[in-house]
Amino acid sequence: MATETLTTERILEATEEVLRRHGPAKANVVDVARALGVSHGSVYRHFGTKAQLREAVTKRWLDRTTNELQLLMTDGSLTAPAMLRQWLATLFAAKRRKAGDDPQLFATYQVLISENSRVVELHVGELIMQLDHIIQDGIAKGQFSLPHPDPALTARAVFDATNRFHDPAYAGEWQKAGIDEEFRALTDLVLRGLNS
Amino acid sequence: MATETLTTERILEATEEVLRRHGPAKANVVDVARALGVSHGSVYRHFGTKAQLREAVTKRWLDRTTNELQLLMTDGSLTAPAMLRQWLATLFAAKRRKAGDDPQLFATYQVLISENSRVVELHVGELIMQLDHIIQDGIAKGQFSLPHPDPALTARAVFDATNRFHDPAYAGEWQKAGIDEEFRALTDLVLRGLNS
Repeated sequence: MATETLTTERILEATEEVLRRHGPAKANVVDVARALGVSHGSVYRHFGTKAQLREAVTKRWLDRTTNELQLLMTDGSLTAPAMLRQWLATLFAAKRRKAGDDPQLFATYQVLISENSRVVELHVGELIMQLDHIIQDGIAKGQFSLPHPDPALTARAVFDATNRFHDPAYAGEWQKAGIDEEFRALTDLVLRGLNS
Repeated sequence: MATETLTTERILEATEEVLRRHGPAKANVVDVARALGVSHGSVYRHFGTKAQLREAVTKRWLDRTTNELQLLMTDGSLTAPAMLRQWLATLFAAKRRKAGDDPQLFATYQVLISENSRVVELHVGELIMQLDHIIQDGIAKGQFSLPHPDPALTARAVFDATNRFHDPAYAGEWQKAGIDEEFRALTDLVLRGLNS
């Protein structure tokens, strides 16, 4: 392992694994360096402080979802309403998968997220910008008309309206009976609100 | 004080005051009895256990909001869309007032709420029933048409869509700049979703 180049990505992968094993309270840079077979000084050359490393690993975790949604948005075959439905369903599925498949890592990230509000704000800002893009595209194609003249404010409203299906605060409800039907009812209401 | 009749209401008032002063971790039945000038046995004749007393005081706190909304619903002069707007604004105002005017008591109730999920479920159920009533009234008057045939599911969707403006998890955002504009944008979206 030590003969491979020590990239930022390799450090972040190792950090996630250490966090999964030791939990957010106990995980430290020495564990990360040991997992990589390098000195902790080598890790500190990439990330100046433990706080910066934790911030970077949090951003990477959130970016995975943003990137999955960004990829969806390159699909030119969908109408704007179909894209919005698909975007909301993909976001819900991604969050639910993260919460369900690896609850320990999910809980760990909830702790990191509470420490890194700036990273979370950026993440939310990116998601709302994607929504804004879908909405503006729909207006341009005559597929949406807005209740409010400002698309950015409407994008924010769509994001807020669907909190229950992407905010980790509601993760406990994502496996309950009827949740998919409730998601569809909410999506229908939001889509109708955009006059689609 | 001791010569007054020891009513359930007096015990609950005293319990709230004790909770406000001592916090949820330290408050106990002996403090409540002392505040009322009675024996703790007298309190236990009304509430069999400390858990029951905490549950009752939580229910009373949540019922205040339900009752305020129920009172609003007796106003026959409003159209269904105007009633729904007013209902959502009243709920947001009530929650924001509770969080802002007495943050210590609000924090205390967040602890109690986390202990009494059954009481919270009942409260949410009552609020959704009120929404269902407004929606059905709007359908009957030809002022709403639904994206989904089931009014109860739509009522749930309206409740979910407005989480950011009534779920205490978001209390930290209720004083930030632009929140009222964001509330209006969301309300506009929801109202349009009901084709009003």
